[in-house]
Amino acid sequence: MRMRATAIAHPNLALVKYWGKRDIRLNLPAAGSLSVTLSGLRTQTSVAFIPGQARDAVILNGRAVWGPKLDRIVRFLDHLRRLAGTDLRATVNTENDFPTAAGLASSSSGFAALAAAGAAALGLELTAPELSVLARLGSGSAARSIHGGFVEMLPGVMPDGSDSHAVPVAYENHWDLRCLILLTAKGEKSIGSTEAMNHTASSSPYYRAWVESVPHDLALAREAIRNRDMKTLAVVAERSCLRMHASAAAADPGILFWNGTTIELIHHIRKLRSDGFPVFFTIDAGPHVKVFCSASEMSAVTQSIRSVFSGDIIVARPGPGVYLKDEPERR
Amino acid sequence: MRMRATAIAHPNLALVKYWGKRDIRLNLPAAGSLSVTLSGLRTQTSVAFIPGQARDAVILNGRAVWGPKLDRIVRFLDHLRRLAGTDLRATVNTENDFPTAAGLASSSSGFAALAAAGAAALGLELTAPELSVLARLGSGSAARSIHGGFVEMLPGVMPDGSDSHAVPVAYENHWDLRCLILLTAKGEKSIGSTEAMNHTASSSPYYRAWVESVPHDLALAREAIRNRDMKTLAVVAERSCLRMHASAAAADPGILFWNGTTIELIHHIRKLRSDGFPVFFTIDAGPHVKVFCSASEMSAVTQSIRSVFSGDIIVARPGPGVYLKDEPERR
Repeated sequence: MRMRATAIAHPNLALVKYWGKRDIRLNLPAAGSLSVTLSGLRTQTSVAFIPGQARDAVILNGRAVWGPKLDRIVRFLDHLRRLAGTDLRATVNTENDFPTAAGLASSSSGFAALAAAGAAALGLELTAPELSVLARLGSGSAARSIHGGFVEMLPGVMPDGSDSHAVPVAYENHWDLRCLILLTAKGEKSIGSTEAMNHTASSSPYYRAWVESVPHDLALAREAIRNRDMKTLAVVAERSCLRMHASAAAADPGILFWNGTTIELIHHIRKLRSDGFPVFFTIDAGPHVKVFCSASEMSAVTQSIRSVFSGDIIVARPGPGVYLKDEPERR
Repeated sequence: MRMRATAIAHPNLALVKYWGKRDIRLNLPAAGSLSVTLSGLRTQTSVAFIPGQARDAVILNGRAVWGPKLDRIVRFLDHLRRLAGTDLRATVNTENDFPTAAGLASSSSGFAALAAAGAAALGLELTAPELSVLARLGSGSAARSIHGGFVEMLPGVMPDGSDSHAVPVAYENHWDLRCLILLTAKGEKSIGSTEAMNHTASSSPYYRAWVESVPHDLALAREAIRNRDMKTLAVVAERSCLRMHASAAAADPGILFWNGTTIELIHHIRKLRSDGFPVFFTIDAGPHVKVFCSASEMSAVTQSIRSVFSGDIIVARPGPGVYLKDEPERR
């Protein structure tokens, strides 16, 4: 056992949204979801289990992590230790090359990288579904970043969550999409995804209808991706996004992730599509707007967005699943 | 029969929203609603039934009305003619001192004034519930502008709509509230209320839960108004507003009435309340934001809003129900 390993993972953006859990402790989703893992943003995480170390230490982007954020990572390391039958404490060093906890899915890449690095450091030989299950215990969305390209999360039916993991729908080279990430605000978001989805589940009268609406959208999105059918994917992704945000806005009190720029960009993208551009938006639990289009349309779409938006834009594309550094990428 | 009459009505803003019909032809609401009739904005409508006139003519703010808007008024005049047993055609002259079809409830004051003036011109002696039923046939919200102050719309259960009318909850002098109407855009709204609510009812998975959520909010709002309980009314009104907009955003395709200024003002008002100001917002089927506060807080609230909003503000307060010109106000 080498006791240390480094993994690289990319965040993923859900096109059919994940919003709500059937089991909070095990991070079991109430419904499936479908996402794209994105290169262009990356997390690199090193884990070292060190004999004699008194407690877990976590360094995120060069700074020590404390409080609830540390507790969450320690709980995840406890899962790893249980699997490996060890009580060694770890030092985790993780870096994101994009804003953290800002609605850019840093927890999806973060826990995917931590799962892969931690499992490798402890010599756990996990299958892809097992690694996805493990990542899910850290963050529901992290289960999807185990795989590259287009990925579906299976909600599963088992109480222990053993069948609640992600599966590939199409590899990253299947469809040459681009994702423009429009940063509409600076800083961390005002409410975390987990807290927001639990608040929605417990107080929104629309939550049940939301969960019931997901399987149909999943079927349409899966088929649209297989057929590279931008028109259908656009309709389904925007619908899923708006319904997720609407379920949260209807909570008590309502959760509003958007700012003024968010909604002006929504109107702009909808106008672009009604003008004939194959383009669509999605928005996660934060104010940023993510715009998908084909690679060939990217320059025209960017130019149009620049007429109404002067903020930072990150360009991403379908990317690989998690992999260990100095080893070949997982395929 | 004098054959001509003039009525004045004020628009009303729903605090517990009206969104969805159980009968589209008769404008029967799927649930109740609760509103404030507002002085500060007014519609004055004159109706003259003129022997020998070949067809109905409608002048709105000095310009002839054509097309679907005229058709809607002609259908309303047909109801009046049926009640009075006449086939005389009418000339309608109506003026709003505020923007029309812009999300400021001009159809509520418009059809309330037209109902009262038309009924008077034809010598129909209607009770208040009958006048409210009549106004409802023109516009569901107009049924509420028959009464002043705080008004509840009863959805009724009769298929013919005879028990679907508004009733007073508290007169306009019961509670000295102010309403600041923040105009966040110019021009008419992109989709009419009727079309938008019918689209929601037919394609939003949240519509049923929305309708089911209304009676509880009505009970809380009614009680809060009776007790002049700003804190409870604020929670209920904002919740009802967000749930109405969320039900529409979840339609297929989603309807988004807000612009960037709308949502920035929502965040500002929520912040003001969390800072201790007794203030709340509501938004109708358009982008404007309506802010309620007590008369004594108005200057402080206005000043705070002015730090983030430079557009036009209309100041309104609870006002009277519809009345005929040159006659005493209805009480």
